[in-house]
Amino acid sequence: MNTQFDFVVDGGVTSPAGFTACGVCAGLKRNGNADMALIVSEQDCSFAGTFTSNLFPAAPVRYCREICATSKTVRAAVINSGVANACTGLEGYENTKRTAALVAECLGIEGSKVLVSSTGRIGVQLPMDKIEKGIRDGVKLLSHQGGSAAAHAIMTTDTRPKELAVSFVIDGKKITVGGCCKGAGMISPMMVTAPHATMLCYITTDAVCSNEYLAGVITKAVGNSFNKITVDNDMSTNDTVILMANGMSGVAVAESSKGSELFEKAVQMVAEHLARSIVFDGEGVTKFVSVEVTGAANDKDAELAARAIANSPLCKTAWFGCDPNWGRILAAAGYSGATFLPENVNLFFDDMPVVRGGLDAGTPEHELAELMKHREFSVKIDLGEACGSCTIWTGDFTYDYVKINADYHT
Amino acid sequence: MNTQFDFVVDGGVTSPAGFTACGVCAGLKRNGNADMALIVSEQDCSFAGTFTSNLFPAAPVRYCREICATSKTVRAAVINSGVANACTGLEGYENTKRTAALVAECLGIEGSKVLVSSTGRIGVQLPMDKIEKGIRDGVKLLSHQGGSAAAHAIMTTDTRPKELAVSFVIDGKKITVGGCCKGAGMISPMMVTAPHATMLCYITTDAVCSNEYLAGVITKAVGNSFNKITVDNDMSTNDTVILMANGMSGVAVAESSKGSELFEKAVQMVAEHLARSIVFDGEGVTKFVSVEVTGAANDKDAELAARAIANSPLCKTAWFGCDPNWGRILAAAGYSGATFLPENVNLFFDDMPVVRGGLDAGTPEHELAELMKHREFSVKIDLGEACGSCTIWTGDFTYDYVKINADYHT
Repeated sequence: MNTQFDFVVDGGVTSPAGFTACGVCAGLKRNGNADMALIVSEQDCSFAGTFTSNLFPAAPVRYCREICATSKTVRAAVINSGVANACTGLEGYENTKRTAALVAECLGIEGSKVLVSSTGRIGVQLPMDKIEKGIRDGVKLLSHQGGSAAAHAIMTTDTRPKELAVSFVIDGKKITVGGCCKGAGMISPMMVTAPHATMLCYITTDAVCSNEYLAGVITKAVGNSFNKITVDNDMSTNDTVILMANGMSGVAVAESSKGSELFEKAVQMVAEHLARSIVFDGEGVTKFVSVEVTGAANDKDAELAARAIANSPLCKTAWFGCDPNWGRILAAAGYSGATFLPENVNLFFDDMPVVRGGLDAGTPEHELAELMKHREFSVKIDLGEACGSCTIWTGDFTYDYVKINADYHT
Repeated sequence: MNTQFDFVVDGGVTSPAGFTACGVCAGLKRNGNADMALIVSEQDCSFAGTFTSNLFPAAPVRYCREICATSKTVRAAVINSGVANACTGLEGYENTKRTAALVAECLGIEGSKVLVSSTGRIGVQLPMDKIEKGIRDGVKLLSHQGGSAAAHAIMTTDTRPKELAVSFVIDGKKITVGGCCKGAGMISPMMVTAPHATMLCYITTDAVCSNEYLAGVITKAVGNSFNKITVDNDMSTNDTVILMANGMSGVAVAESSKGSELFEKAVQMVAEHLARSIVFDGEGVTKFVSVEVTGAANDKDAELAARAIANSPLCKTAWFGCDPNWGRILAAAGYSGATFLPENVNLFFDDMPVVRGGLDAGTPEHELAELMKHREFSVKIDLGEACGSCTIWTGDFTYDYVKINADYHT
């Protein structure tokens, strides 16, 4: 932990000044768990968003892109789990607009100041009667302690909520950045002023910022967090990361201003923590593996190799089985499209040598297997070409992944 | 079955005239199963090969490429399972050459007329004492009925041997094409005058052909068979397809000659049957799914979409669970990189409509789920752009895939 920052105990989206939130059970999930969340600011927020690059963006993604392009400020976000509202055509889009309008009506604000996100099953229309009841119930539950309830309500196959808030001081005044996210499967974000997967993430802050500045900050933070994770290489139709700044700390932060470095670092910390949390809680995941490629001809080659390894079913099942089987890792690098010479490749698990010059480095297999029993370890591969590098965070592939996804629907 | 062709009962690599083969237990596999095969022709063979495009080609792949480039003819092939002889450096390459030399010595031919293939664990050196004993035992067992024994001996995680032979008549003379292959995991061939995966395939014929003609025939056949399959999207270091023609039918076949169409069709039939057999016997596979993309902007886009769907863990687990969850299929097409408009997309399972114009086509889910219980079905997606098309054959993703691959080594 950087000592310039304080973690907020049990912090989340309501940790920054002036934000309220809630979670409510609207009846969208069969198991009766909470399935709608509201995040509301007492003042108008500047904001920026990044969204899935999937060709089938869900209705709320298309709607939010429009809000990003046309609204100067927002006040609230409404999120439902259980139904993704993707591949739902005009009716789906109208339902998203109606959802925003209902929230606006209940809060006495304009519809154009409400963001909407959905996650869950694709191809199903939102049950608008339930959505309406959820909103009307929700607005009564909004509270400054509601961040955690919101984080719970947006979960789908997640096993636990994911939140974090950090604060720091500039000129004696405190700025707080808080966030929550959901995501466990269909995780391979690649957002353009936006990521991919159903992962949803809302980050709030009480700093005073322009939309343009927030867009730059969130794009960079997403590039170094959500766009670096993969659970199953399946990019979602609904991925969304939103950053909202209501200015209630009274402290202005702008490009290269005093405090901008701390602010950007805080957003990065929250985004990185939440992104890593998604992998740790990935569907069926028992191990967190950091795939670190260095020495590539360029960063693009490094990313090709890192993603090939991080998404290889053979590598992922071997990690699950604590099987050092490094041939699968080299094979994945070898078909990734990256250019390098096999005889220059070195491989390490954490700091333990596995391959030297393309050949077995001689570390006893039982030592490697022992290391792989850890909940978290690194696969570090040096391609021996030049200075290109890339790190991708991924998980293993397990019986539970199959169980969860062969059974999600029925 | 095309009526111009006859299937050879229990046919394989020894069905064409003048070929002998055997399988032998050299002790490379812990379970004591046969693990070496020899395929030998009574006369010199013209030949052609296609190999993995992985940057880590195994020693036998590098060796065979050299033989393809420098030898006019070959007489024999030796194949071992259990050890891949990949990532084994100079020692591995010398072991491959020594293997060829031992076979040549036993048969009284030149070393440059022996092809070598290996499949099994990467990063382990061949135990040359066992290899030598296997070869010396093997040459005594060579027989005209030995094709099936060879097909058994090259298996790794395969549950059954894969072979086929067909014959046809030109000018009253019979030509036979036979083949065998292995492969169940690390299957995503993409061979260049070659495919990817550890799949090994040997096809024999008694036609009289030039090496150049055979190279054209095998490249085309591989492109329409082995390069169209995927089990786990993991390309192997050892993929090899060899076509050997010993001329003993006395019938010459050349580019556009009389009979060339039949000959090429026969090679295609054998290759296609063997490729499909690999998917049917894929690690843990319970369902054979033909992913057929049409209406793409071009064939490249069609292939991008087909491979994204065929390799999607979410699609493959849903197929295992007989879950119609078509949103996962559209999402995969949507992130594949193919260009199309969501509202123009139609999807069918066999001939049952699933999606029309990007929306649910209304077929009751239980009817779709019922269809998905079949051992084999098609996922047909029309992107509504132009005439690009591609078909990829794949399997589902199951508990057994995880079990086999988390457990392969230890």
